[in-house]
Amino acid sequence: MVKRLMFEKPLGMRDTLPFFYNQKSKARKNLSDSILSFGYSFMDTPIMEYHETVGKVSATLDQQLFKLLDQQGHTLVLRPDLTAPIARVAASQLKDSEFPLRLAYEGPVFRAQQAEGGKPAQFEQVGTELIGDHSSYGDAEVIALLVESLKQSGLEDFVITVGHIGYVKAFFHDLLGDDEETIENLLNYLYRKNYVGYREAVKELTISSDKQAALLKLLSIKGGKEIFESSRSLARNQSCMQAVNELKQLYRLLEQYEVEKYIHFDLNLISHMDYYTGILFEGYAPHLGSMLCNGGRYDTLLPTFQLGASATGFAIHLERLVEALNEQENGDERMGIIVDDDSYSKGIAEAKRYRDEGYAVLLQHVDQIPDVKAFQLELTKTVDLTKGGGERNE
Amino acid sequence: MVKRLMFEKPLGMRDTLPFFYNQKSKARKNLSDSILSFGYSFMDTPIMEYHETVGKVSATLDQQLFKLLDQQGHTLVLRPDLTAPIARVAASQLKDSEFPLRLAYEGPVFRAQQAEGGKPAQFEQVGTELIGDHSSYGDAEVIALLVESLKQSGLEDFVITVGHIGYVKAFFHDLLGDDEETIENLLNYLYRKNYVGYREAVKELTISSDKQAALLKLLSIKGGKEIFESSRSLARNQSCMQAVNELKQLYRLLEQYEVEKYIHFDLNLISHMDYYTGILFEGYAPHLGSMLCNGGRYDTLLPTFQLGASATGFAIHLERLVEALNEQENGDERMGIIVDDDSYSKGIAEAKRYRDEGYAVLLQHVDQIPDVKAFQLELTKTVDLTKGGGERNE
Repeated sequence: MVKRLMFEKPLGMRDTLPFFYNQKSKARKNLSDSILSFGYSFMDTPIMEYHETVGKVSATLDQQLFKLLDQQGHTLVLRPDLTAPIARVAASQLKDSEFPLRLAYEGPVFRAQQAEGGKPAQFEQVGTELIGDHSSYGDAEVIALLVESLKQSGLEDFVITVGHIGYVKAFFHDLLGDDEETIENLLNYLYRKNYVGYREAVKELTISSDKQAALLKLLSIKGGKEIFESSRSLARNQSCMQAVNELKQLYRLLEQYEVEKYIHFDLNLISHMDYYTGILFEGYAPHLGSMLCNGGRYDTLLPTFQLGASATGFAIHLERLVEALNEQENGDERMGIIVDDDSYSKGIAEAKRYRDEGYAVLLQHVDQIPDVKAFQLELTKTVDLTKGGGERNE
Repeated sequence: MVKRLMFEKPLGMRDTLPFFYNQKSKARKNLSDSILSFGYSFMDTPIMEYHETVGKVSATLDQQLFKLLDQQGHTLVLRPDLTAPIARVAASQLKDSEFPLRLAYEGPVFRAQQAEGGKPAQFEQVGTELIGDHSSYGDAEVIALLVESLKQSGLEDFVITVGHIGYVKAFFHDLLGDDEETIENLLNYLYRKNYVGYREAVKELTISSDKQAALLKLLSIKGGKEIFESSRSLARNQSCMQAVNELKQLYRLLEQYEVEKYIHFDLNLISHMDYYTGILFEGYAPHLGSMLCNGGRYDTLLPTFQLGASATGFAIHLERLVEALNEQENGDERMGIIVDDDSYSKGIAEAKRYRDEGYAVLLQHVDQIPDVKAFQLELTKTVDLTKGGGERNE
């Protein structure tokens, strides 16, 4: 007999019970207050999009997309992120607005999972898009706002790792010429943060030992502003130097925002195979197994929607932020007023009075409570207006 | 050549631009403040569920469900409502909580549309579920909270139409015996609010003219508390009388909540063919073409999840509420500080100062603004710290 699915949920789908819901609401509110304070406007897009429209240009791998067919035979996807949908809107309904555009979002996104017990297939992102500003000032604003938002949410201990895709790519091309297969292969190791694999792959290359040493040295170009010197001496070609200068300028601006202590550079940061076009970053908090937030500059996305505009932004994984905050307090204080037929009217008046004072008050007829003592224990405070109430309260 | 889908969205899917987003946020906040004040706890469930688990037991017609297949071959649905998913959670993870449970939700739900230009296929519901209270006190609380929430959102002119499925069904069985086909047929006319069709169907029945007259008279049993008399005299059987007594008791309790002026009775209200089991209601606002909110008692849903608990609740269609509120003010006041390289640092300090005072402030480098005059026009106020700024402001 086939077991009936009664309480099961699809792979990677989770319920959000009141305790976690309240934590999420609080964190979301703090993040969005910060984002609003920087003059960003929130908007939303549908959960479902055409695969052809935003699925193909999103930063999410095709096998991670949830796909379905509509009645016309088009392939639909559950949105894997909001960056591509917002680019679609910026290039259509908002294209006559005054640029730069500052847009923000919060909502669920979807990534199909291949196995049980893995990552959630639905999670919530809070993020921003700064569209039409191709300067370091734009990059700095986005990172400063990210830091500000995380601090506002109550997170104290975190680091934003910043890299530059232009540096890595120019560095590889300088050393390996047009051997695209090898370059792709090495980028892939860095993308998967498989540094052991990277080392082995480099050692197997039939190139000069100087070049091998340089490729291995790349792994050590991480740290504070001292990396400007070491990265420059490692790769003296024009594109690499330009990337370093952009990072240097970014750092100078972030110092003015007074957020430099959260910044860590890492010149082998990849984040994505071919989405970012300049500065990119990932945020981490201690004790959190996975990435908390990420973002960067993606100047080729808007042009796929026929809008010649650069863009940069960040996305925060809300459930992971709540996990990192690890607050133990529920904050869900509720009082109860227990009534019977005779005291119902009085109960309504009392409840109204407390609600007007800002309390969360439930009014409950005693006949519908299976266990009055246990019911009271789940509440911060109870007022018992029933005849038997005096006895129970003693 | 097949036209490339570039800016299109799937059938019934809509973008939410900042103006409407802000209106929705405000309305959602007011509704949830009211719901929290009544001691309800918000929770959430996944966007996707198994068809077998919650799709089949939801109040939504099967052809309106968005379906997709997972990799194991199970049929998934995009949730058409949150009542069935919350019933699933109440009967599993929350089954050891103290009942009655007061749960609330807000989030997107999905109804597949058959044609262009029709209703939205995704919309947002804000709602409540009171689980484990089978008394009129529970029914009254849910309706009183619905009225309170709508008032709190700023809606002044609305009506809650209340009916009782037990009355209609017992009335039909009393007059038509076990002629289920005819009963189903008449219920269907009422469900679709096709009163002309109902009249014609009644006139074609081969029953006594007394019975025909009674069936037609049902259509006129609507109005204020005077319907208690007319409905009782129309149908003197036990079940009908019990339903009328429940409505009478409900009305008495709603008077104590002082919300009776929003209540209108309608004894041919159906709402759904076989979901509700007692009192049910629909809310309407003038000038709004469609239903604003609805709800009622559904005592057979929880038992399908092996939990012997009755339940009642409401759901408000958030976008329709915003439409009914029809507020013209954006409320999105943003000031801008325009800087150049030299004034950047000063701009950061100024922006911080204004943000700390509660303003939404965007800081923008002048070199990235295509049209400074037009840019300023989109802001409530601008401070121009650039060298050329003095001239522009004059």
